[in-house]
Formats: sequence, C-alpha cells, structure tokens
Amino acid sequence: MRRYKITIEYDGTNYSGWQKQKNAKSVQEEIEKSLEKFSQEKVRVHGMGRTDAGVHALMQVAHFDLEKDWEVDVVQKAINYYLKDQDIVITSCERASDDFHARYAAKRRIYKYVILNRFAPTALEVNRVWHVNQKLDLDKMRSAAKLLIGTHDFTSFRTVLCQAKSPIKTIEYINIVEDEEKIIFELCAPSFLHHMVRNIVGAICRVGLNQFSEGDLKNYLDAKDINVTKYTAPACGLYFVKAIY
Amino acid sequence: MRRYKITIEYDGTNYSGWQKQKNAKSVQEEIEKSLEKFSQEKVRVHGMGRTDAGVHALMQVAHFDLEKDWEVDVVQKAINYYLKDQDIVITSCERASDDFHARYAAKRRIYKYVILNRFAPTALEVNRVWHVNQKLDLDKMRSAAKLLIGTHDFTSFRTVLCQAKSPIKTIEYINIVEDEEKIIFELCAPSFLHHMVRNIVGAICRVGLNQFSEGDLKNYLDAKDINVTKYTAPACGLYFVKAIY
Repeated sequence: MRRYKITIEYDGTNYSGWQKQKNAKSVQEEIEKSLEKFSQEKVRVHGMGRTDAGVHALMQVAHFDLEKDWEVDVVQKAINYYLKDQDIVITSCERASDDFHARYAAKRRIYKYVILNRFAPTALEVNRVWHVNQKLDLDKMRSAAKLLIGTHDFTSFRTVLCQAKSPIKTIEYINIVEDEEKIIFELCAPSFLHHMVRNIVGAICRVGLNQFSEGDLKNYLDAKDINVTKYTAPACGLYFVKAIY
Repeated sequence: MRRYKITIEYDGTNYSGWQKQKNAKSVQEEIEKSLEKFSQEKVRVHGMGRTDAGVHALMQVAHFDLEKDWEVDVVQKAINYYLKDQDIVITSCERASDDFHARYAAKRRIYKYVILNRFAPTALEVNRVWHVNQKLDLDKMRSAAKLLIGTHDFTSFRTVLCQAKSPIKTIEYINIVEDEEKIIFELCAPSFLHHMVRNIVGAICRVGLNQFSEGDLKNYLDAKDINVTKYTAPACGLYFVKAIY
C-alpha cells in the first residue's frame, strides 16, 4: 500500500461541492472515478476539507492509497488525463507517509474572498467574483474585521447544517486588501465552521455599505444565535487557498 | 446629434472578434443591436481598434452618435441591460465632443498577454491564459524583447490579412513581469499590425524555451518577410488593455 498526497485546483461552478453525494456531481467523486479508471483499483480520496457548491479551490489537498507503487508524475498525468474538461486539475502529486491524513494533519486553513467593487458587472470574471455595485468603505471594514480576530463563539456565523462539535473557533487574521477594482479578503484559522467565511465576509461588507455599524457586528457576534439572519456572501467569490501542515 | 464615448470589457471567447461581419457573432454588432433596442435609432458604433476572435478587452473604447440627448448613466445601464449574458459589459459611458473619434484620436495602445507557466493546466482560467508547460527563461525573454523596442519594419510579425499601409511600427516598451505562476507581457505602441502582439509573444517565448536564440530573433526581424513561419501565441491569452488619448 502506498499513500499519495495531491494538490487540486478546481472551478466549483458546476459542482455540488467537494463532498461526494447522491444525485450530484462532486469534485471528490470525479477524482475517485479518474483514479479508478487509471489504477483499476477501488479508491477513496480523503480531502483536507469540504467546500460548498460554487466555491473554488486553488490548492485543495487530498490523500489516497494505491496498492501499486507508481511514479508520482504518472499518477498526476493520469488523473488529469481522465479529468480533462472537468474544471479540476491536479497541480502536484507526491508520496506521503502512511500516517499522513489530509484533513487531520492540516494545522491551518487559508481562504480568500474576491469582491469586484464597481458599478458595472463583470464580463471576464463571471462566477469568479462577487459583484458589489455600491462603494465599500474599506477603513470601516478593516476596523470591523478586528472584532472577529481571536477566539470566539461563532454560532451566529454558522449554519444549521454545520456538523462541528464546538462553535468556538480562533481566527488568526483577516486581511483586506484593495487591488484596482477588487477587494480581496484573506482569512486564516486552524478550522472554520460551515459557511463561516461567507457569513463573515457578508457581515463585514454590510458594515462597509453602512447598513450595519461596528456595534451591530459586535452584538451579532455576542448573540451567539444560530437563528440570526445571516449576511451570506455568495459562493462564487470564495476560494480555498491552501492548508498549512 | 450627441456623441457618446463608451468603455467596454469583454470576454472574446465566443466572438469572432470586435469587427462586424456576416455569419459571425461580433462584439461591435452586439453593442449596436443593444443600442438600437434601447434608442430605437439605427446606430453605428466605431471602435478604437479591432480584436481577433478569442481576444479579450479590459477597456476597449468606442464612440457613437444618438439623436437624443440621454443621461450617460441611462445609456450605460440600457446597453448593459440588453447585453445581459453576452460576456460584454459597458464599464463607463460619457459625452464626447462631436469631433472625437475612438480610433483616430487614440495616441497609444496597450496590450497585455498572460501565460500560465507551470506543468499542470488551468482549471480556473480556461480561455484566459496561454498554458506553457515548460519552464520559460525570463532573463532571456527580457533580453530578446529589447531587440524589438523602437521603430522597425515588422513585416515578419504581421499576417497576410493585415491591412496597414506600412509595416513600420514603433514599440515604446515591452515589460515582462512574473506573478506567481504567471508571466505577463505588457506592450505599448501608437499602433500595431495584425497579429503583431501574438507573433511577438510567440517569438519571445521560443527564445524563453531555448528553441530560438536572440540571434535567430534578430534575423527573423531583419528578414522583413511576411512568409516566414510565425510563432503565433494563442488568442486566449491576449487582452487589449486600453488606449491613451
């Protein structure tokens, strides 16, 4: 038995998400099918973490085992060959130790969220950015983001579908940078709750649009209420960037 | 009669190019049709310059005349409304003087060309970049690019379809920058010949792949021969950035 670690880039637009499920097209299943075609073995691919429908990944990580000892280049090329036209690409493949686990070994996760902040919609980045057509106040957003750094009960930012045992999470940083007409969030934490990044970005943008004060955001966090109305930013602007092991 | 100047972003993938032509979908015609639906006038849209099939634009410029004096915001919103789902977006609209001409008034044109230089293909930027899977030597490319700066006879870099009267053109600069896995060219000249940018990028990349020496590039330029074999980089990596008036 040989363990392999792969890095995966994907366009989440046409997938129901990472996780395999009945009657829906998932990234995990497409990779498993490609691997099975190539290796003729029944393979289970374990991802670093799930992503929702429409969410993209730059460097998703996964591991799997094969009976046969292949050259890693051969494995990478073979999966990509069978994945062709699937919006999923294996960007690297390496051998991993038998106890490596893509999910449990990940110490930190980094996500980015991309907003196109201009009056006109996008022609070139459809399904790649969230188009916000009113001017966002970056200073207010940066100030609001600071309230969420550190360890908090993020119940107000999770969904009822969230399977995490505890709502307590620790955000290490939220950087918000401007790049021409774009506003790009980068968020880092050991782990996140379901929809947590999109709910954080949505709430901070409400502050940036003067629809929500910093005090409102504080109250919202302090409420620890799963039933508060969420300001969920759309999936298309979200990218899982990488895991740090 | 009122003259309007618009700025246009488009994804060239599904178009035969900017220029209107029979039996093919063009950006110019889609904008004219949208304007006619909105204004109920027969409108001719004059572009800053043509782009080929598959080539994108960030800030293409065009002008047109309408009998009626509309608010520019209304014109912009109306064209975008009718263009919806066309991969074309009007990013600004302003009034122009009656003698403004999008093409003749443009003093300089800036293009960029984007290469994804890594082993794995792209999942997220299909039709947006040229994927070159062998390592390009950036130093050699920058050195080679210098040979083309200034005023030269670019016959070896045009196509037989080129309608320009003279093959003499002046390149003001060719910048080549690295951005993570991408290599991005920026080229500026008062005007370019047909396919000139793609032929320049293609030839410089041959140098970067050690398939072509700097001396070969010099000979190629000096040949002033329209029939030499061109190294034409694919359309999908090319973006018309902007015109300087």
